[in-house]
Amino acid sequence: MVVKIYGMASAVCPQRVMLCLIEKKVPFEIELVDLSKMQHKEPHYMAKQPFGQIPYIVDGEFELFESRAIIRYYATKYAETGTKLLGENLEERARIDQWIDVEAINFNPLVFPIVFNLFILPKQGLAGNKAEADSFAKRLSKVLNVYEKQLSKTKYLAGDHFTLADLTHIPTMRALVEGCGMSCILDDKKFVKAWWEAIRARPAVEKVLEFMESGALQYSP
Amino acid sequence: MVVKIYGMASAVCPQRVMLCLIEKKVPFEIELVDLSKMQHKEPHYMAKQPFGQIPYIVDGEFELFESRAIIRYYATKYAETGTKLLGENLEERARIDQWIDVEAINFNPLVFPIVFNLFILPKQGLAGNKAEADSFAKRLSKVLNVYEKQLSKTKYLAGDHFTLADLTHIPTMRALVEGCGMSCILDDKKFVKAWWEAIRARPAVEKVLEFMESGALQYSP
Repeated sequence: MVVKIYGMASAVCPQRVMLCLIEKKVPFEIELVDLSKMQHKEPHYMAKQPFGQIPYIVDGEFELFESRAIIRYYATKYAETGTKLLGENLEERARIDQWIDVEAINFNPLVFPIVFNLFILPKQGLAGNKAEADSFAKRLSKVLNVYEKQLSKTKYLAGDHFTLADLTHIPTMRALVEGCGMSCILDDKKFVKAWWEAIRARPAVEKVLEFMESGALQYSP
Repeated sequence: MVVKIYGMASAVCPQRVMLCLIEKKVPFEIELVDLSKMQHKEPHYMAKQPFGQIPYIVDGEFELFESRAIIRYYATKYAETGTKLLGENLEERARIDQWIDVEAINFNPLVFPIVFNLFILPKQGLAGNKAEADSFAKRLSKVLNVYEKQLSKTKYLAGDHFTLADLTHIPTMRALVEGCGMSCILDDKKFVKAWWEAIRARPAVEKVLEFMESGALQYSP
């Protein structure tokens, strides 16, 4: 049974799920939900994802939403396939969960308004609020100082191996650094910069971008 | 080794951890970090919890922050002790993870400004912004409509058993309904109201409140 991702390959939360499945060598297909046509707010979509956000997945009889819950599920279900993403024991897993929550609670809410004002609105031909983006960028820089300290001690966020803790940051970091041209936010953070370069270089990232640009709807490892 | 919780028993995120440990019959002690004295922003505290938030835990050599990562850790570590909080299989666990993330991402960011304006500021003798609280309450009511739909189908959020998905909501729901006197937010939501009454009635909740009111620092099941 191929995993069906309801969403768009160009959006960050579906990309989080796609990255995880590609690292795990699990095939998937995209069931297109076009944000520009507001399809994520249509009743039949909201019957499945009641907050009107993307993505949700269907895997046989099983359905799930919240991208971070989905990646936890597949990293556990396919623990022995592809890249190991959850650590070797309960304590390593807990540190990974800690950084997944840091991303969701401390990182993402600051990145989102920057990406919205400097990337999403301009792409629609609308003017973003640069002052608002700058204000969030200042707060984000302080959060990234915490990352800098952690990454001065370990190569990746939860230890010396790439895990879900790192993977969950990739789509929004890319939107920030490449979509918004905000690479300057890493200039005074050499460990964060090296970490970003290491996780950006993972073949799965290029595979997501190729898949997105090709317009394909089906992925096989 | 007794689990040490660095924080205050009266604060919602330490309460999330305490509730989990009490359900799991795990003893703990509080290492007092007094928010009113800004002890959570002192350098020796921030060396352990770099965002200056409470709680973090120390368990022998192991340290962890982010309350939802901590409850996931203890619910897994003590899977066979006390209340079963993580379901019977990967799919049940995934639904629990989904609702833990819904709480963190869709519920908590709306409850926090209400509790801040209607409970935390007034307790300090300061005037809260009632209009701001009302505006967040309107948005929260819509989120709780999603809960209402789910709870019309299952007794608890992730199925017919009490799990971490429900537990994680208890401290902030109590702050909202009892601390802010906002029980009216449940008036048009009979399933959410019945759910809240069921989870509020768990003995662990009364144990947390008794512990908090006694000023004790050590808990034994």
